[in-house]
Amino acid sequence: MTTSAHGRNDEAKLLSGALLSKLIRERVAEKVNARKLIDGSIPGLAVVQVGDHEDSNVYIRMKRKAAESVGMKFQHVHLPSSTSVDELLLEISKLNSDRAINGILVQLPLPAHVDEKLVTESVCQSKDVDGFSSKSVGRLVKGDFQNTFISCTPKGCISLLVGSGFSIEGKVAVVLGRSNIVGRPIASLLEKHNATVVLCHSKTKNLNSIIGMADILIAAIGKPEFVNGSMLKPGCVVLDVGINSVPDATRKSGSRLVGDVDFESCKSVAYAISPVPGGVGPMTVAMLLENTLIAFERFIKTTPSPNNWKLV
Amino acid sequence: MTTSAHGRNDEAKLLSGALLSKLIRERVAEKVNARKLIDGSIPGLAVVQVGDHEDSNVYIRMKRKAAESVGMKFQHVHLPSSTSVDELLLEISKLNSDRAINGILVQLPLPAHVDEKLVTESVCQSKDVDGFSSKSVGRLVKGDFQNTFISCTPKGCISLLVGSGFSIEGKVAVVLGRSNIVGRPIASLLEKHNATVVLCHSKTKNLNSIIGMADILIAAIGKPEFVNGSMLKPGCVVLDVGINSVPDATRKSGSRLVGDVDFESCKSVAYAISPVPGGVGPMTVAMLLENTLIAFERFIKTTPSPNNWKLV
Ligand SMILES: NC(=O)C1=CN([C@@H]2O[C@H](COP(=O)(O)OP(=O)(O)OC[C@H]3O[C@@H](n4cnc5c(N)ncnc54)[C@H](OP(=O)(O)O)[C@@H]3O)[C@@H](O)[C@H]2O)C=CC1
Ligand SMILES: NC(=O)C1=CN([C@@H]2O[C@H](COP(=O)(O)OP(=O)(O)OC[C@H]3O[C@@H](n4cnc5c(N)ncnc54)[C@H](OP(=O)(O)O)[C@@H]3O)[C@@H](O)[C@H]2O)C=CC1
Repeated sequence: MTTSAHGRNDEAKLLSGALLSKLIRERVAEKVNARKLIDGSIPGLAVVQVGDHEDSNVYIRMKRKAAESVGMKFQHVHLPSSTSVDELLLEISKLNSDRAINGILVQLPLPAHVDEKLVTESVCQSKDVDGFSSKSVGRLVKGDFQNTFISCTPKGCISLLVGSGFSIEGKVAVVLGRSNIVGRPIASLLEKHNATVVLCHSKTKNLNSIIGMADILIAAIGKPEFVNGSMLKPGCVVLDVGINSVPDATRKSGSRLVGDVDFESCKSVAYAISPVPGGVGPMTVAMLLENTLIAFERFIKTTPSPNNWKLV
Repeated sequence: MTTSAHGRNDEAKLLSGALLSKLIRERVAEKVNARKLIDGSIPGLAVVQVGDHEDSNVYIRMKRKAAESVGMKFQHVHLPSSTSVDELLLEISKLNSDRAINGILVQLPLPAHVDEKLVTESVCQSKDVDGFSSKSVGRLVKGDFQNTFISCTPKGCISLLVGSGFSIEGKVAVVLGRSNIVGRPIASLLEKHNATVVLCHSKTKNLNSIIGMADILIAAIGKPEFVNGSMLKPGCVVLDVGINSVPDATRKSGSRLVGDVDFESCKSVAYAISPVPGGVGPMTVAMLLENTLIAFERFIKTTPSPNNWKLV
């Protein structure tokens, strides 16, 4: 037992996304199953991939496994890297009107000849489970959550905080990184939860002193172990979004995954901290399932059919 | 001559929106006029009002005067407060397809029976010169400025800062207030200009010490003279967005307008400060004209006609 900087006799509480995401997936599976028993319908998730990016293959396998494990239908639309933008848009439009598909995500990165924005915006609003379209982002910022999806990693971060019993209101939340898929939407969500948010990026000056103000620190910059314990405000809560591969001669693979936070030096200063792996990462996948279930439930609610008429 | 807290021998520089907006309006007028000489076409701005809200009447008169003074067509669609949502949407859809109208704004507030969101979202993207739709907000947040409009007050704030020669990059910018029409989009824009942004609101704790960090302070909370000089970091730049009417027995009207900043105590601490009135207010109107001109120019560029074929 060590005495840590926050005066408690133990190390930081572990924010285990691995554990929480398992509970969430079980809950999703229960709901999927209940509906299936009623009328045989199940949620469908489609992932559109163009080309054969190695990381993408890994992520898609992971998503398939997750979706199927909760009883969802999973469709992998795998197109050759030579696919034209028009052909890709046609595939998406087919999925947009496919009643068996509730969630659509376009696996990024796309090949260089494809306009990512055009493609992202072509996914219809009611199936945009990634929450990447301008309309989804706008609704998130405006706090209009009724007909939109919150993107999975930001939603996973908040879910991990709230699910672990932390209140966000009134806290100073420092977000490192402002990408459209991670930093910016996390900042927006924290503000909706009434944190006072400081959004930092590569042009931020005096970053150390700003990190030192954080009651809640979110690191999402893609720099291995950038944040260390000496920067932290004792007793803060740290979420590490980063996933970085660093060389490690002791591993068979020759590398290992680390976050943007130096876990070892931070765990004795922070009150709670999420590990990498096993922190935010699994939450992201759980949120994708949750969003697909939400899309499915909205579809059922708004689309009259002989089957769900029975229900109402 | 007084010696102020920032060590200079004078008071804060005045960020005169009155002056800058005059220059912007002249530039808009020149462009409108040049186009008119070429083919007789002029930009059109429509304001849709439902009911007879007293403040709205004043604002609309101001907008009409401004638009007409730069040579634009101004159309006031004034509907009775009994107008149904369907009737209102029909009027907006007529304006959406009217080639003589380039910018449409719906004057808020709308009567209680009208769903503000539904109406705001019904203005087509290419004419949303107020920038209030979810899509416009999303594009702003994502930094995708090509086919969108930045809302007028936030754009006016940045324009006043940049137009007065201040650089924003790397500065700590504290924004007080997070409304969808002012605080949030201002925070987004400051971040796009590479400031480190702190977004504050009614749930923010230790507000005074956060205000004291600001290199740039934007006050938009609607609380008369809330910010005073003792809170400021000496040498900061202050933009006062607030417009508040307070009782004043020395005035014939019995009241006067003040901002969210106590000008007198701040002017000897700040390096520069915008007054109320004559600061952000007139910039808002100038930006509305600028946005309408942009909408008009985009329309000309993308809509082939015998007249503008001559030009290319
Ligand atoms: N757990 C999960 O499920 C996910 C994890 N990730 C991981 O999260 C991390 C971030 O991803 P992503 O947002 O896509 O990355 P990006 O590369 O798109 O963005 C990185 C951001 O960090 C900022 N930044 C870079 N260096 C610094 C620095 N020294 N100080 C302050 N800010 C800095 C950049 O600033 P600027 O804008 O000024 O350039 C930029 O805003 C990565 O490690 C990624 O692997 C990503 C998605 C999902
Ligand atoms: N110059 C111009 O052209 C314009 C000027 N204005 C003026 O700007 C001001 C703000 O307008 P608007 O954004 O519409 O106002 P809103 O009332 O919609 O929003 C006020 C914001 O201020 C926050 N706030 C209120 N009290 C405090 C406090 N004590 N400390 C910190 N934050 C506080 C609120 O927080 P919370 O969200 O937690 O409630 C809210 O986010 C008004 O004076 C308005 O007249 C507005 C539009 C245009």
